[in-house]
Amino acid sequence: MKPCTEVMADHRTVRAYDREASIPEAHVETMLRMAQRASTDATAQLYSIVRIRDLELRQRIADLAGGQRHVLDAQEFFVFLVDFYRVSSLLTFRGEEPGHYPHLAFLFGAVDASLAAQNLALAAESMGYGVAFIGGIQNHPRELCDLLGLPPGVLPLVGLCVGVPRHRPPLRPRLPLDAVVHVDRYHPPDRTHLAAMFEAMAPISSSGDWLDVLRRYFARGGVMERREEAFRRVWEEQLKDGSTGRA
Amino acid sequence: MKPCTEVMADHRTVRAYDREASIPEAHVETMLRMAQRASTDATAQLYSIVRIRDLELRQRIADLAGGQRHVLDAQEFFVFLVDFYRVSSLLTFRGEEPGHYPHLAFLFGAVDASLAAQNLALAAESMGYGVAFIGGIQNHPRELCDLLGLPPGVLPLVGLCVGVPRHRPPLRPRLPLDAVVHVDRYHPPDRTHLAAMFEAMAPISSSGDWLDVLRRYFARGGVMERREEAFRRVWEEQLKDGSTGRA
Repeated sequence: MKPCTEVMADHRTVRAYDREASIPEAHVETMLRMAQRASTDATAQLYSIVRIRDLELRQRIADLAGGQRHVLDAQEFFVFLVDFYRVSSLLTFRGEEPGHYPHLAFLFGAVDASLAAQNLALAAESMGYGVAFIGGIQNHPRELCDLLGLPPGVLPLVGLCVGVPRHRPPLRPRLPLDAVVHVDRYHPPDRTHLAAMFEAMAPISSSGDWLDVLRRYFARGGVMERREEAFRRVWEEQLKDGSTGRA
Repeated sequence: MKPCTEVMADHRTVRAYDREASIPEAHVETMLRMAQRASTDATAQLYSIVRIRDLELRQRIADLAGGQRHVLDAQEFFVFLVDFYRVSSLLTFRGEEPGHYPHLAFLFGAVDASLAAQNLALAAESMGYGVAFIGGIQNHPRELCDLLGLPPGVLPLVGLCVGVPRHRPPLRPRLPLDAVVHVDRYHPPDRTHLAAMFEAMAPISSSGDWLDVLRRYFARGGVMERREEAFRRVWEEQLKDGSTGRA
């Protein structure tokens, strides 16, 4: 077993899985139990995990996520959910009225779910498996809610593939440490810093220019902006109207 | 060095730190570098970390978070931020117009920041330190934004104490695995499940009734509802109006 920091230092996203291989059920259970050990806000565990075993369902989700082959090829695929339906049900069961806090539910649910997801990912990697987070489940969030039968108060956050790697891609670069870590106060980058960031990240794009990735996702008319309206509606339906308060 | 899953299995929140002890700077750098190795959406690293070294500033933040002594006692205190100011600056620097997607920015920024935060926490624990996530930074989010000088597009997410533990509290319970993990479809809990959840979680409250914690935070008039309005305004100012699009 490798030390924890070695597992982290060695992380790369794996998208090519050996379809003939399998993961013992005991390993999957360990991953899920490690997910549960993550810190959680006010003891409440404001998330759920859907383990997608049905292959037809997996195909539907892979299609919704933009035809991502690795969603189908991975031995396991999990959808992490922000979940306030459970805590509202627990309160209602005991005669208490749940509160209504759609923005903070989003925040604390997203943190709880992500801490658990990262534990699951690292546990998997420490056992030799490869992982890939899938943001593409946000392409069609309403359809995903319906497919998974999500009640009010529950919102799909992120997907996670876990599988036996067919090969290990090279390590990917990261921003210079001082671009991410600020001391005492946020220090906006100047032009020299911005140029250094593009230089550090250049190898991440096949074109050698990080801008090609950033433009595609984050610029006007890009992937994020195209996804925004559908996601806003789902957030309103599931958390704001569907609510934390009406389990 | 303990294996990764052992570090996770052994996690407890530590709030009592040895104020006489210290953490070598090399260890802090390892924690921060491990945070950076976490997966990130579309290569963009949509988060920043503010390391709070100034003790007067630390005191101010501890006060805002509700007088949490451990924020002050911990050797290190980090504030994790959702950060779209950087990616907008990178796009603008290269002549591109950033998009506008305040809900998805919240989502993808919160996931990126939390995956990084969990890596930092586990790296610290694997080196023998104790950690505590601090949700209380959401008590007065506007004041925190001002204290840290956060530009538009940047939103405080969660705090994290890291320190030398004075003692190790007992392991805390978690929900039954099948209350958190669903197969293929969300299965709403019935009354038997809900009763089993209260039973499993009972030891987490000094009163022996988990409801006391859940009511305080999540019921009508509770902590979350009291925080909601101020947080909604900050989210609107920083991400919706302040925007992902106006770096």
